[in-house]
This record gives sequence, structure tokens and C-alpha cells, in this order.
Amino acid sequence: MADNVSVEEFLATAVDAAKKAGEIIRKGFYQTKHVEHKGQVDLVTETDKACEDLVFNHLKLHYPSHKFIGEETTAAYGTSELTDEPTWIVDPLDGTTNFVHGFPFVCVSIGLTLGKVPTVGVVYNPLMDELFTGILGKVSSQTELVKSLLATEAGTKRDTPTVDATTNRINNLLFKVRSVRMSGSCALNLCGIACGRLDLFYELGYGGPWDVAAGVLIVKEAGGLVYDPFGKDFDITVPQVAASNPFLKDAFLEALQH
Amino acid sequence: MADNVSVEEFLATAVDAAKKAGEIIRKGFYQTKHVEHKGQVDLVTETDKACEDLVFNHLKLHYPSHKFIGEETTAAYGTSELTDEPTWIVDPLDGTTNFVHGFPFVCVSIGLTLGKVPTVGVVYNPLMDELFTGILGKVSSQTELVKSLLATEAGTKRDTPTVDATTNRINNLLFKVRSVRMSGSCALNLCGIACGRLDLFYELGYGGPWDVAAGVLIVKEAGGLVYDPFGKDFDITVPQVAASNPFLKDAFLEALQH
Repeated sequence: MADNVSVEEFLATAVDAAKKAGEIIRKGFYQTKHVEHKGQVDLVTETDKACEDLVFNHLKLHYPSHKFIGEETTAAYGTSELTDEPTWIVDPLDGTTNFVHGFPFVCVSIGLTLGKVPTVGVVYNPLMDELFTGILGKVSSQTELVKSLLATEAGTKRDTPTVDATTNRINNLLFKVRSVRMSGSCALNLCGIACGRLDLFYELGYGGPWDVAAGVLIVKEAGGLVYDPFGKDFDITVPQVAASNPFLKDAFLEALQH
Repeated sequence: MADNVSVEEFLATAVDAAKKAGEIIRKGFYQTKHVEHKGQVDLVTETDKACEDLVFNHLKLHYPSHKFIGEETTAAYGTSELTDEPTWIVDPLDGTTNFVHGFPFVCVSIGLTLGKVPTVGVVYNPLMDELFTGILGKVSSQTELVKSLLATEAGTKRDTPTVDATTNRINNLLFKVRSVRMSGSCALNLCGIACGRLDLFYELGYGGPWDVAAGVLIVKEAGGLVYDPFGKDFDITVPQVAASNPFLKDAFLEALQH
């Protein structure tokens, strides 16, 4: 299927799609937005839909036989099973709450899996014109938890057990790390680990594989590690993720368990 | 003292100083930094000192009789009392932890009080080239807490009562607002209220008046309200602040008390 196409070509095509989608995001960001609601907290915007259409059409034009998993499509038509086929996993607009409020951490995230293995990843923030693809050896060199900047998110679930667990975890970690940031974009948090402006990141209960498919690869190519926050191997079909440089992994996992 | 100088001239001079300091911040942001520690969590950088010197020298050149309060100067020489004299209150680099880690929410904040009343405010983020001065009528028009994006910070104190109070407060508020952001810059959080990308902001126990002197004015000029999180009038000498549009104030104060 993908025999005659190099990973570099896949990457170039994904970057093209991300830049075009980014232009839509950038324009929409500065306009009044017409917003529909999905649940109380989450939001879908016209831009979100327009970006997913654009990205999927762009990729289908180049790779008609490939599979596609996207946040909007999945929300509309139910879960798409991840198979061994080449599969593009797209979050057309990560940080939709930020987008609606005008908080400038938003991005488009495009990942490609071959045999279920993330192989190409592109994250593009059009507001800061930041393009993350493979970044070799750029994770932070921090070795001490107490000097580390941690990112996490409050998620969208608001039942008492979930919220209590969320704030208890943050409470516990505040005694161990330098400080906490919540940017509102899972993909950009992963890119923050990749480029070293964040040292630690975990999130539990994010929306789906589109939130992490590209970022996971970008972290790994930058020399970082992506793992399950409870010590298992990372599984893209389970919505929980942790990431850091290799030095911090053990201490971070231990801190997350207590 | 300031009889022959208009507020517009003060503002123009402050913008000049902020832009020049911003250039230093921007350059330093992309370089390896030599960091000293003040306490376990807080950081002072060479850039911080260079910016404060630059801003103070620039302002003193124009207004030799004015008073000055700055984060670095105060840290070095003890608290400077705020008097009725024209007083420039400067945070040369708000978001120092962000700066050290390369997280792009950093700014210079310059405020001027006349008779203890904040009169001029400039906040400049050189990384996004965002200059906030007076922005009329730009606060959000949000009227419902549950649709509001809240910003707060974890602060720098790590004793158990403070951390517990911090996370309990966030726990409580997560049931009432849309979501929480922690950007790591008090001044930029206030500007976020002013330009409407945040709806609610509170912070307890920030560093000093330099964190809020400019932002408070920018919020007010944008049609927002700045108040004490426990319902009293805002007092620039007490390190606790809340801000929102007028519609949300009562509901926000009530939410903060429970």
C-alpha cells in the first residue's frame, strides 16, 4: 500500500495539509465564532469541521487507499477501529476551548500509523507559526523533579470522583515539581516536552487518539519518552499519557503513584 | 510634579521602555540562560536584572523626580512604601519560570500610580509581540460562569495549608466553570481578561504590586472589574486579586467563597 511512498513524502504531504488547515484556524481565531455545543464543556466550531474536511480531502487526494480517523468524523459516525492499514489520525483543531475563548494555544495535529505504529507526526500552531515535526534531541536535560515544569489538564469530565482525583493529583505533585501549567492543548503539551519548554506532562481522559497521534511521535523523535502514567506501555487506544525526557521518567512515575 | 506632563506622554514613554526591555527578553528567551535561585521555585535571571535597569534608567531620564518600585530592587533593598508621589511600579520580567523553561508566556509590566491610583499601564509580551495598554470595551461579554474560562496560578509557596487551599479552590471551581488555564504570568492573565480571551482570573499570594500595577489598569480601561477575591475593594498592597467583566463578578465572588 505504502510501498512506493517514502516517510519523507508522507511528512511533506501532512505539513502541506497542516499549513492549509492552520490558515483556516488563524482566520477563524480572530473572528466572531458560531459555536455548537457538545456536552457542557466541550465545543465544536465551524472551523474544526472545515479543517477536518480540508485535511482529509488533501490526504485522500494523495493516498486514496489509506484509512482515516478524525475527531469530528468519529464523533459523528462512531469509533473507527485502528487497523494495520496506513491510517491518518487527525485532530483538526486541538484546543477548541482555547479557540473559542481566543486563548492562543491551538493547533492542528496530523499523525500517520503504519501497522498501528505512529510513523509520521505534524503539529502546527498557526498563531505562533510553530511547526513541530521530527525534532531530534531537543527534550530538556532536566534530571531533578523539583526543578521541572509540569503540564497537565483539567479535562472535560466534571463528576466528583474525576475532579477530586484530578485536583488530588495536582496537590500531590505541587510538592514535588517547580510549577504547573495548563495550556488547554494536549498536542502542544507533547510538543512542549519535545522542544524542552516543559519537562513533564501527563493527561488522563483526553478525547481520543487524535489528541496524541502526532505528538507522541514528535516527543520520541526529540529523544523523549511517552508512557502510560501508571507504568504500563503507552497504548494509543487508552486515553492516558505521560511524557518526559528519559532521566525523569522513573521519578515522575513514582510521583504520579503517590 | 507631573503637572506639565500628560498621561499620554507617560504612556508613550512607558511603551518605549517596554519595547526596549522586550527586545532583551526576546533575545534571552532563545539563549541558554544563567540562572540564580531565589527560594526553591522562584528564579531570577540576568535578563530580569538587565530589563529592570533598562526600564528604570529610561524612566528616570524622563522623570528624575518620580519614585520607583521594582521587583528586583525591592528584593535587594527591602520593601518600598507606596506614597502619593508619582511612582513607577515595574515587573521587568513577569513569568520568570516560563522564561527559564522557554514557555512563551512572559512579559514586561510597567505601571504608574499618581496619588496611589494606577494611572498608566503597559504590558508587553515580546514573544507574541502583544502590547497591552488601554483597550476600551474589549472584555468578554460572557454572563454564565459555566461557560467561562478561568485562569489562576499555583503560586510559589509549597507549605501544606497553602497547597491544599489552592487545589481545594480549583476543585470547587472546576464544577462551576468551563475549564482552567495556568499560564504562569499574572500580568498576562490580567491582559487576558482585558482582551476577553479569559473570562475569570484570580490569584492569591503573588510576588508584589509589580505583578498587577499595569494589568489592573488595562483591565479597567477595557471595561473590566478588578476586585479582592474575598469581596473587599482591591488593594494593590495586598497580594490577592480577582478580575472579570461586570456581569460575572457576583457569581465569581460567590463561587470563590464556597
